[in-house]
Amino acid sequence: MKNKSFILKGNIIFSKKLDELLVKENAYLICEKGICKGVFEIIPEKYVNMPVVDCKEKLIIPGLYDLHLHAPQYVFRGLGMDLELLEWLNTNTFPEEAKYKDVEYADKAYSIFAHDLKNSFTARACIFATCHTDSSLLLMEKLEKTGLICKVGRVNMDRNSPDYLIEESAEKSAFETKRFIELALERFTRTTPIITPRFVPACSDELMEKLMGIINEYEIDIQSHLSENSEEIKWVKELCPWTDSYAKVYDRFGMLGSDKYKSIMAHCVYCTDEELKLLSKKGTYVAHSPQSNTNLSSGIAPVRKMLEFGVNVALSSDVAGGHTIDMLHTCMEAVQVSKLYARSVDFKYQALSFAEAFYLATVVGGSFFGKVGAFCDGYEFDALVIDDSSIRSTLDLSCEKRLERLAYLGNSDMITSKYVAGSKI
Amino acid sequence: MKNKSFILKGNIIFSKKLDELLVKENAYLICEKGICKGVFEIIPEKYVNMPVVDCKEKLIIPGLYDLHLHAPQYVFRGLGMDLELLEWLNTNTFPEEAKYKDVEYADKAYSIFAHDLKNSFTARACIFATCHTDSSLLLMEKLEKTGLICKVGRVNMDRNSPDYLIEESAEKSAFETKRFIELALERFTRTTPIITPRFVPACSDELMEKLMGIINEYEIDIQSHLSENSEEIKWVKELCPWTDSYAKVYDRFGMLGSDKYKSIMAHCVYCTDEELKLLSKKGTYVAHSPQSNTNLSSGIAPVRKMLEFGVNVALSSDVAGGHTIDMLHTCMEAVQVSKLYARSVDFKYQALSFAEAFYLATVVGGSFFGKVGAFCDGYEFDALVIDDSSIRSTLDLSCEKRLERLAYLGNSDMITSKYVAGSKI
Repeated sequence: MKNKSFILKGNIIFSKKLDELLVKENAYLICEKGICKGVFEIIPEKYVNMPVVDCKEKLIIPGLYDLHLHAPQYVFRGLGMDLELLEWLNTNTFPEEAKYKDVEYADKAYSIFAHDLKNSFTARACIFATCHTDSSLLLMEKLEKTGLICKVGRVNMDRNSPDYLIEESAEKSAFETKRFIELALERFTRTTPIITPRFVPACSDELMEKLMGIINEYEIDIQSHLSENSEEIKWVKELCPWTDSYAKVYDRFGMLGSDKYKSIMAHCVYCTDEELKLLSKKGTYVAHSPQSNTNLSSGIAPVRKMLEFGVNVALSSDVAGGHTIDMLHTCMEAVQVSKLYARSVDFKYQALSFAEAFYLATVVGGSFFGKVGAFCDGYEFDALVIDDSSIRSTLDLSCEKRLERLAYLGNSDMITSKYVAGSKI
Repeated sequence: MKNKSFILKGNIIFSKKLDELLVKENAYLICEKGICKGVFEIIPEKYVNMPVVDCKEKLIIPGLYDLHLHAPQYVFRGLGMDLELLEWLNTNTFPEEAKYKDVEYADKAYSIFAHDLKNSFTARACIFATCHTDSSLLLMEKLEKTGLICKVGRVNMDRNSPDYLIEESAEKSAFETKRFIELALERFTRTTPIITPRFVPACSDELMEKLMGIINEYEIDIQSHLSENSEEIKWVKELCPWTDSYAKVYDRFGMLGSDKYKSIMAHCVYCTDEELKLLSKKGTYVAHSPQSNTNLSSGIAPVRKMLEFGVNVALSSDVAGGHTIDMLHTCMEAVQVSKLYARSVDFKYQALSFAEAFYLATVVGGSFFGKVGAFCDGYEFDALVIDDSSIRSTLDLSCEKRLERLAYLGNSDMITSKYVAGSKI
């Protein structure tokens, strides 16, 4: 659609508040030049000449936002799940990531990733590549062609990494990061760079300082990992005796966000109250990755508690700690692990409802990208049209129930159309 | 295939021991008149005239065994997951099950269930119907046609149940149960009846005594629920002040199994050590339903501990507490919740490996049905041929890794052939 102005007619569902799904059956969703103009029961006079796409009984929902996943790990998703984080990195992850030095290999692997992400429920994503500049740019090129909107990070790692996958110095790492940013900004429009120190154990203080300089120079967003696994946390304590918390290490280098740039910290399974206060104050986004935290035996992140502290919690697949990029499924898993948390860890923190998880995956995740994630006037228009008729039942279900069921039983084959920033992709 | 004698050639995987997968690539799996004769690298002389089906790169695995699921709940799978057991029964389950008084409704709903179960990874299953004799027989008729081998229970419930779904007396319940058994044995061969008291709260002592009589008269297997949810356990304590444990209630009525008949108890999330000893002594099968225990906030069953006590632990979907009948997925979830148990509840109990979960779903589950569940000489021949080529990757994977990945990423569309007791279904 060239002018990106059109109307979708159908069963429209989205969130505005944490615990409430808004449902409009047989309603009209207006997209004018890529921008949502809202949901209407009757088409307003000024839009009556727009083309109407009748989605009939299908569901129309916002795109979902995946705030943390690793593109080079996609090829080994669902494999080697019997290890915990640090051993898993050494055994599965680092040997695979090392292959991306070879741009030809990256080409093959990233083609699969980009293809599958395009066809998923995800409209926008924040993605880790590897420490290889050229193949990271190749990933961006492939993502740019999908029509998705992605932030991609060339990974920084200059210490405590295997010989075959380590940058030779903080200086070289920073230099390559700037080269990556410059080339990315020059070549792509929908796909933008994001600063990506792997995690504290893999980044020297010198490197972190240099990255802080780059962040401030470019006013560029940042993504990393925080408090995923007990052994990792212990290690950070040893590496950074000058601080009493993992979060403060990032904060020292300005990496928890500011009014000029945003920050995503993946996991935060074991953050202390003090750390949660800091994340809340800084406006840091926590990328909650329930599937990955389960698969790698990391534990259960206390999402309800984070929300009570006022932290921005979004959802993420964390492929390949997570085994699937299916973000509706991730909503389900956020609900599931929150139930086990309430049952087995701390009953004070009530489990998430499906509506709440959907809010985190759409409204909160979308807000990382601007005015995105809901069908509100002035928001960028991301939408999925979904046909769930292959799930057979005798029941006549409300749209709300059909959406919940999709999180449990749906798959991306049910997507019949996908729009990102008003473009059908 | 009429004579049911043939050979499958391909990548064959099965379990014999708890923690070991046996893999034979490009090997021959012999089926003679419905009975497995083993796996061979070269076809033995006496079988050389049998037809060979070349499955090429596909995986050949035993069928999977679902030891606990509710057919009438299938239509609301993936819905109403924000409730715990007792409230969930009253809100979602009982109103739906009441509809099965109407055989026409049952016909529609059970058609969907039987169709989907036929096309799933499940070769044999133990299934709850409802307390309605005629629609329970109709379910059996539909299952009989699928070629699967199923045990179906007409549910007994004569107390603490809603007016619209309660049997009028223990006597009537026992009478209908006998009628159900007689008709089922007369009409079906692959589909057999199983005694199915819903759970202690819904069955009077008088009814349990009558059922004990029927069990002994027919030497018929039994299935029920045990220790799923804390509120339920508290309730049983109030209802049965004469005992100090939930398991002993079933034991008093001979319902934990004997050398004449087997017993399945679903869940057993909170069994005490004493109860586990009793289950072990009696040879009771625990149907571990990880997805359901998570969805209904029941908790995590300590499977490793059960195994250490020598309990027969098999796996089950428990639809619609569980939302899917996918038993490979259930293997994954058994692994996942065991990791969270080790991390968050009791680190003494090591998480299950995928190989262990697969053993429970094939060898242990299969043993409920006789010599079933492995490709051993003399076992009934249940097999699935699976094409996983739609999961794209750059990696060259061993068969073992491909099977593990299937548990995470597979779906029943990947099944290209399914054999039950030697018949292709």
